[in-house]
Amino acid sequence: MPSVSQRAQSMPPSPIRKLVPYAEAAKARGVKVFHLNIGQPDIPTPKVMMDAFRNHEIEVLAYGHSAGLWEYREGLAKYYQKNNINVSKEEILVTTAGSEAIIFAMMATMDPGDEVIVPEPFYTNYNGFAIEAGVKVVPVTCRAEDGFALPSDEEIRAKITPKTRAIMICNPNNPTGYVYTMEEMERLRKLVLEFDLFFFSDEVYREFVYDGKQHHSVLHLEGIDDRAVIMDSISKRYSACGARVGCLVTKNKDIIDTALRFGQARLCPPTMEQIAAIAALDTPQEYMDEVYAEYNARREAVFQALSNMPGVVGQKPPGAFYTIVKLPVDNADKFCTWLLEEFADNNETIMLAPAAGFYATPGLGQDEVRIAFVLNVAAMQRSMEILEKALQAYPGKTA
Amino acid sequence: MPSVSQRAQSMPPSPIRKLVPYAEAAKARGVKVFHLNIGQPDIPTPKVMMDAFRNHEIEVLAYGHSAGLWEYREGLAKYYQKNNINVSKEEILVTTAGSEAIIFAMMATMDPGDEVIVPEPFYTNYNGFAIEAGVKVVPVTCRAEDGFALPSDEEIRAKITPKTRAIMICNPNNPTGYVYTMEEMERLRKLVLEFDLFFFSDEVYREFVYDGKQHHSVLHLEGIDDRAVIMDSISKRYSACGARVGCLVTKNKDIIDTALRFGQARLCPPTMEQIAAIAALDTPQEYMDEVYAEYNARREAVFQALSNMPGVVGQKPPGAFYTIVKLPVDNADKFCTWLLEEFADNNETIMLAPAAGFYATPGLGQDEVRIAFVLNVAAMQRSMEILEKALQAYPGKTA
Repeated sequence: MPSVSQRAQSMPPSPIRKLVPYAEAAKARGVKVFHLNIGQPDIPTPKVMMDAFRNHEIEVLAYGHSAGLWEYREGLAKYYQKNNINVSKEEILVTTAGSEAIIFAMMATMDPGDEVIVPEPFYTNYNGFAIEAGVKVVPVTCRAEDGFALPSDEEIRAKITPKTRAIMICNPNNPTGYVYTMEEMERLRKLVLEFDLFFFSDEVYREFVYDGKQHHSVLHLEGIDDRAVIMDSISKRYSACGARVGCLVTKNKDIIDTALRFGQARLCPPTMEQIAAIAALDTPQEYMDEVYAEYNARREAVFQALSNMPGVVGQKPPGAFYTIVKLPVDNADKFCTWLLEEFADNNETIMLAPAAGFYATPGLGQDEVRIAFVLNVAAMQRSMEILEKALQAYPGKTA
Repeated sequence: MPSVSQRAQSMPPSPIRKLVPYAEAAKARGVKVFHLNIGQPDIPTPKVMMDAFRNHEIEVLAYGHSAGLWEYREGLAKYYQKNNINVSKEEILVTTAGSEAIIFAMMATMDPGDEVIVPEPFYTNYNGFAIEAGVKVVPVTCRAEDGFALPSDEEIRAKITPKTRAIMICNPNNPTGYVYTMEEMERLRKLVLEFDLFFFSDEVYREFVYDGKQHHSVLHLEGIDDRAVIMDSISKRYSACGARVGCLVTKNKDIIDTALRFGQARLCPPTMEQIAAIAALDTPQEYMDEVYAEYNARREAVFQALSNMPGVVGQKPPGAFYTIVKLPVDNADKFCTWLLEEFADNNETIMLAPAAGFYATPGLGQDEVRIAFVLNVAAMQRSMEILEKALQAYPGKTA
């Protein structure tokens, strides 16, 4: 029997995949598991969006344009303009979720063997997309002690080779919650100019920036219109992860044109979900405000609790709805397994994502976990209570 | 400014892309254009499917399972069993349209530089997917004179190299409408065993086989369970091209497991459209019968007309809803352009797809066009009337 491909064998499994059987076993034992391990929010999708499915009058569910429905691209252009991102509908290519925007950006600008520099820890699936595109993710390491700020220019320069084609950030960041400052964005702007690179920015969490801080889009930067590419998605903005509607935004016409060729090969993004996404553009501001306040309250609750736990190292993240913290444990992977396999407080436990899977450099993140603020405040508080008790009870504790 | 990738530059543009401006110009001049150039049917999507969008009660449009919704996979397994394809839900991976099933199959089984043999003319986007996967499509040529039957074993063997990993067919075929006989399937079965290859079969048009002929799925064949992979989609079956719901079906667990890793990277196919696809499984048989009869009537109408046109070479296709015919013209590309740019009968014209774009071998298909039966019988008849008059009026006619 012929074997699967080598590239398939190198596809990294999801960092929490091996924990899933333990979570299922815990549930089978009657233990309630609070899932802080994934980016699936519990927030209701805007009614205006879900109503669009109900109210359709479509008879033939036909292909849409390969670049996305025109009406949606027009609406998206207005959305970006409201965010001071001055783009026209022709500069937006609608994709099947943010995932496809990332693959298209990689494939349109990089050839097999090319390299993209990404601050680590990073969204694990970047690895998968890079393997699909045949390109190499070169990590530059951020540290929990610095709140996962951008490493120094020297550290980034040390990673640049003749194969480097792009720097890619996720801003606000999944998994760290970090938001790059204007000074950091300027440093990256100078580097991409100096080394003739593209600048990719995954801005899926744009709406979630706290403490009066500002989000700086890659398209806010001067003089790099030809290099700047936004990858975006409605998954988090409207709590519509299942819609699979994203987009690629760039003022570089060559990238739009070539990404469109990949888009034509797969014909179009889902039509009904785009129609719903058009409706979602009219989501009332109160919804956005409420969701923002809710995530902020969860973040406060988590950090109020974490700050009282001895040996826990982390800073309140300025954005998104994740944080990575160092725990006083021998090994986060073992700790997360133990939480599901052996620990329970009042018959309840928590599932966390061990952070090693978010690093490309082997050995990093061994005592770190990612916590996603995807449950309500009471559940987050209870989860932190469970974490605190677990850290006290864990046999491999180091503090 | 950094340039786009070499692979992006090698992405073939759609064969009809350069005709689109001519079609738009014709419409701007007030000319009605009958579009026989694309595979977008005019058939209404089953009401039961479109109602599923209307009747949903979903509050959070969440990620589904990366392999597809369980309920859908169960329903699909029953659908295949009804078609004598004996698979379980675990042997089905739901994909974002048939396109993704093809990419996943290629990426899961082939490494960059590997080769897949495909009878030409073939669905142009196979080229695009192959470029994305870094693999090479090696064509083996079918001929209009033979009704696009499978070439001889010698011709296929001559294409096999140490890099060959798979043979891929589209059955029933887009763009030719050909349906492989059991004898041809057996020949391919022996070849994949002899040369240790995978056998991919794109069976999107399974339901459309005429004249009492039978469809032979790759999973009907004996002794190649480890090699056989079906790529499928609901786009044509339920006239739901915009849904972007397909699947990959194989009894080779390694392929399912590795394709799932690619699936996990992109998280999931669209959720609402899968819910609608579940409903579509209950499409009444009368709908299927009516649609079948409609396509068959169109096919009859087209071939009744074509058989009276001097110099036109083609056989009534046994399946799908396309045909490729040789026309008595100097160059089909020029003829198709001329149809839009210069010709009109009673202020109406037709848009056809020049067939050269469906061939990988340069120089083939220069006097061939693909006609898609995607308009009703009257429109198809009128289109053929226009074609006949155009062939008489065309300055570059050769008969």
